[in-house]
Amino acid sequence: MSDPVFLRACRGEDVDHVPVWFMRQAGRSLPEYRALRGTGSILDAIADPEIACEVTLQPVRRYGVDAAILFSDIVVPFHAIDFGVDIVPGRGPVIAEPVRGRADLDRLRDLQPSDIRHVTDTVDRVVAALAESNTPLIGFAGAPFTVASYLVEGAPTRTFATIKTMMYAEPDLLHALLDRLVGITVSFLRAQIEHGARALQLFDSWAGSLTRDEYERFALEPTRRVLEGVADLNVPTILFGVGTGEILDLMARAGSSVMGIDWHVDLDEGRRRVGDRPVQGNLDPVRCLATPDLGVAAARDVLTRAGRAPGHIFNLGHGVLPETDPDVLAAVVRVVHDEGKAGVR
Amino acid sequence: MSDPVFLRACRGEDVDHVPVWFMRQAGRSLPEYRALRGTGSILDAIADPEIACEVTLQPVRRYGVDAAILFSDIVVPFHAIDFGVDIVPGRGPVIAEPVRGRADLDRLRDLQPSDIRHVTDTVDRVVAALAESNTPLIGFAGAPFTVASYLVEGAPTRTFATIKTMMYAEPDLLHALLDRLVGITVSFLRAQIEHGARALQLFDSWAGSLTRDEYERFALEPTRRVLEGVADLNVPTILFGVGTGEILDLMARAGSSVMGIDWHVDLDEGRRRVGDRPVQGNLDPVRCLATPDLGVAAARDVLTRAGRAPGHIFNLGHGVLPETDPDVLAAVVRVVHDEGKAGVR
Repeated sequence: MSDPVFLRACRGEDVDHVPVWFMRQAGRSLPEYRALRGTGSILDAIADPEIACEVTLQPVRRYGVDAAILFSDIVVPFHAIDFGVDIVPGRGPVIAEPVRGRADLDRLRDLQPSDIRHVTDTVDRVVAALAESNTPLIGFAGAPFTVASYLVEGAPTRTFATIKTMMYAEPDLLHALLDRLVGITVSFLRAQIEHGARALQLFDSWAGSLTRDEYERFALEPTRRVLEGVADLNVPTILFGVGTGEILDLMARAGSSVMGIDWHVDLDEGRRRVGDRPVQGNLDPVRCLATPDLGVAAARDVLTRAGRAPGHIFNLGHGVLPETDPDVLAAVVRVVHDEGKAGVR
Repeated sequence: MSDPVFLRACRGEDVDHVPVWFMRQAGRSLPEYRALRGTGSILDAIADPEIACEVTLQPVRRYGVDAAILFSDIVVPFHAIDFGVDIVPGRGPVIAEPVRGRADLDRLRDLQPSDIRHVTDTVDRVVAALAESNTPLIGFAGAPFTVASYLVEGAPTRTFATIKTMMYAEPDLLHALLDRLVGITVSFLRAQIEHGARALQLFDSWAGSLTRDEYERFALEPTRRVLEGVADLNVPTILFGVGTGEILDLMARAGSSVMGIDWHVDLDEGRRRVGDRPVQGNLDPVRCLATPDLGVAAARDVLTRAGRAPGHIFNLGHGVLPETDPDVLAAVVRVVHDEGKAGVR
């Protein structure tokens, strides 16, 4: 029984407390992060294993969360193969030459170990630092549709107009792009596991921009293939997107061990939609913007909805907002550990 | 049988073709609108009955849609009582002094007919111009929660942090604000009907930012009271919000004649959730950004989902995007009129 509670919960096993971590727990909400990062590019910080390791560990130290997640970004493997990606502060990932035709696919070459040495070096450091506390590290990547939306749109979008037009006007081109992304994503995830990450999260952040039909045609199969490509490594996998209430049952078909449920969907209903597999979520991050007492009350609402069934990993229903007071998250961790007694028989 | 097809469809009666109009059909996507409007403030254009009437009529002339919707904005009644509202181009409504406490509620005085003379003058002109074609005019207002979110946040927001904190920290203050908004909204809608509008749409645009519990506590009852406040006028009412899949059944309890369904929810499923009342929607506006052929294919998908049951008003599942080519919308209107044969027995 030496497996950490986070991994046990991911497998739907009994645990003596509900595990908790927070999407974007490492980042701008922490003063120690802001002090370390300064004003440089986030891609430079990610590329420096010493800084990236320290940033990954900061929330583990401060909050005592049950898992670390690698400080990285879903565009990192594409930056690593010189696709021409930058992350512009206040704006997000920007692609110098977005995918517009077949010729652009040639620029998506296979990922070599040397391309992501900085990432695997960071994983090595984090894993060594976490060994004593037996805290697992979560590796991650973007799911193919979400990555494709960045590579096609070229910049953050609210309408997804370019990729949606591609879906209907040039579906074969989009499928060819998604095929490429499957291979790169599998390589990127396998490297993280081989260096000691003990679970994986796939962020299909923009899957909620799709109708059911579009999800089935352009997101489900590539996601399923990514998960299949890491299945032999036998680590828990988590699939998460925002605004996915209408497609949760379809996403569940991709085959992750755990389904992330965003805060729009009540957790008991979300669990039902994903076929009673373990779920992760789903506190509205906005409810962590006021006082610790209000954050605790909000966390209790989620614990109540989760019930006492096994297989609940407490998390936010979206990433930590930069303006969050860390004391609120600390109070949330305490109440989840003290009162979250899922799966005790 | 002289009632226009739009009104008949709103009542779930048989029609010989599916009626169609587009949210934001009057506006920036039309060259004749851009030519007329120039660069002045949109609130100035709304305040000029001659311009506002012309803008309202433009899409009726161009597309032959089955209804006009008043060229206005949900903040207009609050601008009219000098609450301190501006609409900043590229940003949206901005409130000089957002609601922060009880004292701010005193600034929300009752609406007098003289406050909105410009609006009722516009309605008079539009109704006169549409008399010959018997095209109905839809009046509208923002639903109380959505208006409250503007008045409390003070500017467009993605997180709704201020109003959500108010929900949990000062629920009585928010309820008092919502009470005020119910009264103003009823007055504003009644005035439009009394001057000849033949249907009403309530935009609860931000209802999708609420959990089910929050919708029940802060949005349902004020919306129900607004609809109750116009019930004696006996015109069809439409309730619409974006990203509302999780709360459609609750929204339906507010009692509108028709429920708007955004494009995330398949129309057959949406119809089921709202208890088989008439539905309006729900073409993804992004699918009108490419060619007329692709727009027509997308419209056919919606017609297929709608089936041949009575009570379908064809619309987008969100407003027309400013970059939409009007020729695509014209092609959509043609295919809906030619092929949309709902409720023919």
